Amino acid sequence: MQKVLVIMGSKSDLPVAEKGLPLLKRFGIEFETAVASAHRTPKRVEDLVKGSDAGVFIAIAGLSAALPGAVASFTCRPVIGVPVSGAVNLDALLSVVQMPPGIPVAAVGLDRGDNAAVLAAEILSLADPEIGRRLAEYRKEQALKVEADSEQVRTDVGS
Amino acid sequence: MQKVLVIMGSKSDLPVAEKGLPLLKRFGIEFETAVASAHRTPKRVEDLVKGSDAGVFIAIAGLSAALPGAVASFTCRPVIGVPVSGAVNLDALLSVVQMPPGIPVAAVGLDRGDNAAVLAAEILSLADPEIGRRLAEYRKEQALKVEADSEQVRTDVGS
Amino acid sequence: MQKVLVIMGSKSDLPVAEKGLPLLKRFGIEFETAVASAHRTPKRVEDLVKGSDAGVFIAIAGLSAALPGAVASFTCRPVIGVPVSGAVNLDALLSVVQMPPGIPVAAVGLDRGDNAAVLAAEILSLADPEIGRRLAEYRKEQALKVEADSEQVRTDVGS
Amino acid sequence: MQKVLVIMGSKSDLPVAEKGLPLLKRFGIEFETAVASAHRTPKRVEDLVKGSDAGVFIAIAGLSAALPGAVASFTCRPVIGVPVSGAVNLDALLSVVQMPPGIPVAAVGLDRGDNAAVLAAEILSLADPEIGRRLAEYRKEQALKVEADSEQVRTDVGS
Amino acid sequence: MQKVLVIMGSKSDLPVAEKGLPLLKRFGIEFETAVASAHRTPKRVEDLVKGSDAGVFIAIAGLSAALPGAVASFTCRPVIGVPVSGAVNLDALLSVVQMPPGIPVAAVGLDRGDNAAVLAAEILSLADPEIGRRLAEYRKEQALKVEADSEQVRTDVGS
Amino acid sequence: MQKVLVIMGSKSDLPVAEKGLPLLKRFGIEFETAVASAHRTPKRVEDLVKGSDAGVFIAIAGLSAALPGAVASFTCRPVIGVPVSGAVNLDALLSVVQMPPGIPVAAVGLDRGDNAAVLAAEILSLADPEIGRRLAEYRKEQALKVEADSEQVRTDVGS
Amino acid sequence: MQKVLVIMGSKSDLPVAEKGLPLLKRFGIEFETAVASAHRTPKRVEDLVKGSDAGVFIAIAGLSAALPGAVASFTCRPVIGVPVSGAVNLDALLSVVQMPPGIPVAAVGLDRGDNAAVLAAEILSLADPEIGRRLAEYRKEQALKVEADSEQVRTDVGS
Amino acid sequence: MQKVLVIMGSKSDLPVAEKGLPLLKRFGIEFETAVASAHRTPKRVEDLVKGSDAGVFIAIAGLSAALPGAVASFTCRPVIGVPVSGAVNLDALLSVVQMPPGIPVAAVGLDRGDNAAVLAAEILSLADPEIGRRLAEYRKEQALKVEADSEQVRTDVGS
Repeated sequence: MQKVLVIMGSKSDLPVAEKGLPLLKRFGIEFETAVASAHRTPKRVEDLVKGSDAGVFIAIAGLSAALPGAVASFTCRPVIGVPVSGAVNLDALLSVVQMPPGIPVAAVGLDRGDNAAVLAAEILSLADPEIGRRLAEYRKEQALKVEADSEQVRTDVGS
Repeated sequence: MQKVLVIMGSKSDLPVAEKGLPLLKRFGIEFETAVASAHRTPKRVEDLVKGSDAGVFIAIAGLSAALPGAVASFTCRPVIGVPVSGAVNLDALLSVVQMPPGIPVAAVGLDRGDNAAVLAAEILSLADPEIGRRLAEYRKEQALKVEADSEQVRTDVGS
Repeated sequence: MQKVLVIMGSKSDLPVAEKGLPLLKRFGIEFETAVASAHRTPKRVEDLVKGSDAGVFIAIAGLSAALPGAVASFTCRPVIGVPVSGAVNLDALLSVVQMPPGIPVAAVGLDRGDNAAVLAAEILSLADPEIGRRLAEYRKEQALKVEADSEQVRTDVGS
Repeated sequence: MQKVLVIMGSKSDLPVAEKGLPLLKRFGIEFETAVASAHRTPKRVEDLVKGSDAGVFIAIAGLSAALPGAVASFTCRPVIGVPVSGAVNLDALLSVVQMPPGIPVAAVGLDRGDNAAVLAAEILSLADPEIGRRLAEYRKEQALKVEADSEQVRTDVGS
Repeated sequence: MQKVLVIMGSKSDLPVAEKGLPLLKRFGIEFETAVASAHRTPKRVEDLVKGSDAGVFIAIAGLSAALPGAVASFTCRPVIGVPVSGAVNLDALLSVVQMPPGIPVAAVGLDRGDNAAVLAAEILSLADPEIGRRLAEYRKEQALKVEADSEQVRTDVGS
Repeated sequence: MQKVLVIMGSKSDLPVAEKGLPLLKRFGIEFETAVASAHRTPKRVEDLVKGSDAGVFIAIAGLSAALPGAVASFTCRPVIGVPVSGAVNLDALLSVVQMPPGIPVAAVGLDRGDNAAVLAAEILSLADPEIGRRLAEYRKEQALKVEADSEQVRTDVGS
Repeated sequence: MQKVLVIMGSKSDLPVAEKGLPLLKRFGIEFETAVASAHRTPKRVEDLVKGSDAGVFIAIAGLSAALPGAVASFTCRPVIGVPVSGAVNLDALLSVVQMPPGIPVAAVGLDRGDNAAVLAAEILSLADPEIGRRLAEYRKEQALKVEADSEQVRTDVGS
Repeated sequence: MQKVLVIMGSKSDLPVAEKGLPLLKRFGIEFETAVASAHRTPKRVEDLVKGSDAGVFIAIAGLSAALPGAVASFTCRPVIGVPVSGAVNLDALLSVVQMPPGIPVAAVGLDRGDNAAVLAAEILSLADPEIGRRLAEYRKEQALKVEADSEQVRTDVGS
């Protein structure tokens, strides 16, 4: 089965990554983590990506957020980009999503390390029905949680 | 091999879709197209998605752009969302990318029907090396185009 | 008399809803509350809306905020949408207000659960003059409060 | 049956109003139109609103777009606000939707005179089932149009 | 000499007003304060403005911030508008500054009650040279403060 | 009577100035015009402002739009700033309005050379009742125009 | 004397580059031009930068605009970044300017190829007084142009 | 060797300056600091700039942020502008970067006093290879830090 390589642009992006790592584990997906900066260590990004046999890349970065695009420039495998929030939230979000024609990044929402993991699982499930089964279960739990929350709200605030 | 289902929120989104369809053909990926509106025909979106054996969905929509999220709500397979430009470009872009935890959409840039197709090919290439080979070729052509453009620019404006 | 169904996209939206519930009570309007997510539980949204005899729906959601539009897609009765604030406030606001032609949502301001309740009362007052009387009273109180505040400010800071 | 009063802040807002007037006619709703500026003719706005027996007000304005709020300040009946696009689209949109607690405006999207009409119809349908029937029909037509568009797209671009 | 009428849209705007009141006192300008809401008490705004013999109005408001424009609609004397910050800062700022042709508001920066006072003084100084003298003195103090700060910074961080 | 000095940051700002010049004439206000750039000719801005006996300054500029603030830095008389629209409209608008404490600029809306003229007239009318009379007349005409427009709209689209 | 290397992310950025090339010539600065895409040809960017003996780099790009940062990642010499306008102007501007600590890009304004050239000249003038002399001359011409424009405006619109 | 003059628009900008001063020291670059406000002390800005023999200017300012442009208006040497964050972050950023043709400011990111120092060093290194050597060392340290961080993250969260 194919692995996921989770690359953070800086150690400070770890909390965003950590929203997704338990999900990867839950879905039974092997992953590796690394810190590599598109601007401080461009060669390291290249080496990590070219040297990796990962099936999917998750790249997490803030500010100018060039990392997801840099990863995409070295591989034809899917790259999921997670913009990290800061003083000007639109900077990372636009940097990640507004890629030029031919080199897509699959952007998820601001700080959505969790959704990056789920999207990676969805992609890998195409070749591995077991992941698909676990995703379906996860979805069902989410739905049950909504129903339970609804009951509790109804009890708390009346109807 | 798995197919792609390209859903537009409105017929007016066709030009954005058409940026990607020739690429899907080039990569040898079978696709179907449909128009279905999250707001005008919610049941139709549900039926299309649940009734489809597509491996990847591409959902294209403008304004409030609920379609990609609606598609994602009915499947655990990857959904690529393409925001369509309009008077307030951030509306579609933010609606597509800012999904809640657990239900990701893989957002590409504004009007980037082409990148949706390339991303779909990248995803499907995980299980089909032939698509990967075609993607690599496409990338190489892009790179050669850049080099040719560079030559021409150098000739035109001197150096 | 017609009821109001207040649907939150997540239990975390409850504080926004709670700004409006006491107002609904004050105006003598019966209401029910529920949590239902457009993305996590689309079928539940459909069932809640189609199964409800409410005259007015209030839908409260943040981020991509598809809930108000999803509710609107299942009913021809008025739907009031309340965008919930977050890291990128414009995401929810634009998702709620920028609906496509034919399927309106009546958007109120960011986190304005109170105004959603007042607007619901205004709508229901068309058929129930008693609600209209209570609204007029509420308005008068607001105006008196402004006058009292003015007196206090004048006393505090001189004139 | 209750009427709709459509107030434009300026004659230049007429094209936006005209997106909705045919819909009001189609739904069998009587309406009146007027131009009145919150800033140039505040007394006229007051007189129009206080002197009107309309059940629903539609107020259309651009730029600082104070008209919908001004109308709302003189009535407890529902006021639908339509922001009109311009050089800075967010100005009208935010002015219309970000009303203070207690005085809501039901904002629809930028230039969405059509949705203002549909929302007015939805509101008036609560007391008039015939309007509700016409709305349902209109919705059905929209859905059929989507299906027809889908067929045509499929024919045009293949599948 | 002409007075200034400082109107707040809500008692919560008092801290912004209080940035300017000591300045008005320092410049020897008589002022009155009042709370009046364009949306909750439109008649009160009209009465205050029409009944006032103030030479300059300062209107302070947040959110949709219709107050400065409402004041301007009832007088041909200069109206200074102060937008108040909130969750979406651009709402108040754009509502205050983007007035339609013919009815200007003199907008100052977000929460700049102090600048509203200085601007009022500048306006009133045209007919009262003594205010002009005090303004020049105030400016000189500001400049001296900058020079003193510069010295301190140089001492603290070296050069 | 005091004059107005209208300074444009660039000759390309002339169309914005020309919206206001006929109004100054109509109000019987003497004015002078000049082009002076805060960045290209800082000394010229200083000389123009310090050498002028104008009672009010109107400064018109786009992009970084430092001109209104530069003018304000050399005078204690009121400075009206007109931001000029461009590719990023918020740049000029925010540069003009967001002045630091102590040095206000009276910002009007984007490209609102007309409102700058009316605001100048309002300011000068404090010492010259004749200008006030002309302003009141101008306002009345505007109001009559609104009423005439209303009649025409009513005739054109029925009611 | 040190040269300038002007790199465009795409041939379509040429018009922005061409605003600056005549200025480089005028200032007597040797330059080379190239097209190289951070995303399509990352290796080519690396080779161009590492193989260049240029003293200053000008990098021009739109959308996600990773090029200036990519160039900066391969050199310790100054890199000037020019964001190119598009549907969402803030994307390129924020991508270029919001660089992480340690790896600056010297951002100029949207589409300001001309200012990139002037800034390059200013930098190179530190070691070459002749360029400084030409810059001073260019500045003087600009100032004279402003004065001439001022005369013409005064003649055209009276004073 | 040429010096750097670091000018803050206000003493409150000191923390942003202090991010860069240790870097200037590390690179062996002499610097001076000053507080000078474009709006409160325009003459002082002019005197500081004209009287300085600095090779590079760093200007730090918030809000309307005219200081970098004002400095640039008095010199042909490179000016680095640092926008300072506040309630509306885009105000300072756009004011600094959107300079008119002919008078560039080299903008760095919001609050990036550190990057201003690095950019100044890069510029001065063109004539002083020793600074270039120190910059290369600094870069290497940054890269090593990324690698060390990567190791630690890998240890902490597993791979």
